[in-house]
Amino acid sequence: MEEVADRSILAIDLGGTQIRAAHVSPDLVVSCRRAVETRDEEGVQAVIDRICSAALAVREDAKRAGLADPVGIGISSPGPLDPWKGIVIAPPNLAGWRDIPLAAQVEEAVGLPTYLERDTNAAVMGEWRYGAAQGADDVVYVTVSTGIGGGVVVDGRPLIGKDGTAGEIGHITVDIDGPLCGDGQPGHAEAIGSGRAIAREGRALLKSGDAPGLAALAADAEVDAELVARAADEGDEACRSVLDRAWVAIGAMCAGLVNTLNPEVIVLGGSIGCNRPELPSAIRAEIDRRAFPAPARRVRVEMTQFAGDVSLIGLLPIVNERLNDPSYTKELA
Amino acid sequence: MEEVADRSILAIDLGGTQIRAAHVSPDLVVSCRRAVETRDEEGVQAVIDRICSAALAVREDAKRAGLADPVGIGISSPGPLDPWKGIVIAPPNLAGWRDIPLAAQVEEAVGLPTYLERDTNAAVMGEWRYGAAQGADDVVYVTVSTGIGGGVVVDGRPLIGKDGTAGEIGHITVDIDGPLCGDGQPGHAEAIGSGRAIAREGRALLKSGDAPGLAALAADAEVDAELVARAADEGDEACRSVLDRAWVAIGAMCAGLVNTLNPEVIVLGGSIGCNRPELPSAIRAEIDRRAFPAPARRVRVEMTQFAGDVSLIGLLPIVNERLNDPSYTKELA
Repeated sequence: MEEVADRSILAIDLGGTQIRAAHVSPDLVVSCRRAVETRDEEGVQAVIDRICSAALAVREDAKRAGLADPVGIGISSPGPLDPWKGIVIAPPNLAGWRDIPLAAQVEEAVGLPTYLERDTNAAVMGEWRYGAAQGADDVVYVTVSTGIGGGVVVDGRPLIGKDGTAGEIGHITVDIDGPLCGDGQPGHAEAIGSGRAIAREGRALLKSGDAPGLAALAADAEVDAELVARAADEGDEACRSVLDRAWVAIGAMCAGLVNTLNPEVIVLGGSIGCNRPELPSAIRAEIDRRAFPAPARRVRVEMTQFAGDVSLIGLLPIVNERLNDPSYTKELA
Repeated sequence: MEEVADRSILAIDLGGTQIRAAHVSPDLVVSCRRAVETRDEEGVQAVIDRICSAALAVREDAKRAGLADPVGIGISSPGPLDPWKGIVIAPPNLAGWRDIPLAAQVEEAVGLPTYLERDTNAAVMGEWRYGAAQGADDVVYVTVSTGIGGGVVVDGRPLIGKDGTAGEIGHITVDIDGPLCGDGQPGHAEAIGSGRAIAREGRALLKSGDAPGLAALAADAEVDAELVARAADEGDEACRSVLDRAWVAIGAMCAGLVNTLNPEVIVLGGSIGCNRPELPSAIRAEIDRRAFPAPARRVRVEMTQFAGDVSLIGLLPIVNERLNDPSYTKELA
């Protein structure tokens, strides 16, 4: 395939809480931002309408600002999804979404070719092409927030899988008899290391009375992962143990990936991944403790360079490549 | 790269116990077999001399039998190793081997271009090109014997990694606080699911007196994984539990790989993998219990089609491809 310079796109990040839309230019400037609440409880069509309105508004804003008209639309969404057919299959945090042909609907409403990709696959593209993993052939992007997800580049190519589900690393078993995940499956890294899991353990500590520091803070606030982390930072030992255990689970997951994939770099993102400065060294310690020496020495553990914009930026090469690839078809799989 | 028909090779499988050598023809006939004991306690050079003698003997036998002269030599060896430089790095079951330039030494002694690959990477090539995984783009080969190892094909290409260590799936953590592996690292699948681990648990049961069936058998034989399995088959409950736990560990490891790689087929080999008919369905059960529905539905779990010859056969395409690839160099990495 001939190398073609990227052109501006319209990027949409569909999340459980927010829909964000923006104009992304080839020099990675994210502008004309719009954000609306997802409110999935109002039904699938209402959410799709909000996505289309946001996209149209960004396109208008970009035009008024004299920016290049976008050549296409990229949508990043929680998985599972079918990136070839542009169908959102059944994301746990979008209530009622089941086999929704999102790309086709947005394409029709906005009048631009539209491509769908899992949020974490978009993220790994962003870091690989322009960020912390630039120049590497083998990359793992790990997002730690409410859940744990990932995206993988193997030997210079994004790893998607026939079902588009490759890279769902948060659902690797790291503790055979461990707690259940949101999906009811036992022992996943996400069930110990995610924000949801940390909050669950915090609530249990509150109930058992074993976390006085957390109890004091919880008088004024809901117990979530952030509050547990604050209590730990302020000296609550039980909360510190919950975090330590979470980091071990994430580190063990990464160590397994180091032995499986021999990556050059692991990039850490997500609301928790970006905000816990001790996490990279905790992951590094577990890699050294659980992975073969050669791939352990090889791999770097880095923070995301684009934080919350990583998926929007990652959609830029995805949309451009699919537009430029004559063999690309939404019916491939 | 132009498609070139495979030509006959001389294949050598270096194991901790045995060195096997044979002539492998493009129609997958393995002939002129030689097998000698490894006897690594006699030193590295003695083992290399035995490898070279076996190779020369097979070449002679093939000539006498009127077979095509091999175009090159493939050596499969336990890892870690550097497949580009042809160097065996430090396999746990070859005492004293450290950074040994095996390919160069055999090449010089036998006078044929010689290539080195990890035994499990050769195995996955065999099954992918000619066996149970033929036609698939995404494959995991799992060997269960004394240890647990693997080889991976991703999107139609073997996954090797910059250090040649990709696919070391037996060293994925499946039980954060689990028993130590041979390498001293905690909670690897190999530390629960391998022959070595099953034997260790059997010996512990013998000591504690909790396995009467095993105790009766152990009067006449050493406790190894085979004996524990026989006791289980004959009704020893404690031994049955050890096997069940081993299969859960292997299944959990596979489920993690299903979520990470979204493979189309998992091929099971190795002395234990080939000989426990309940293992594929046990793995299937763990995949269904621990992996996302779509990739779980996609993946088939199959038995190896070449059993003990899988690595020898897998060397055929490896040697031919490296010979035919002008960009291949032993100094790549």
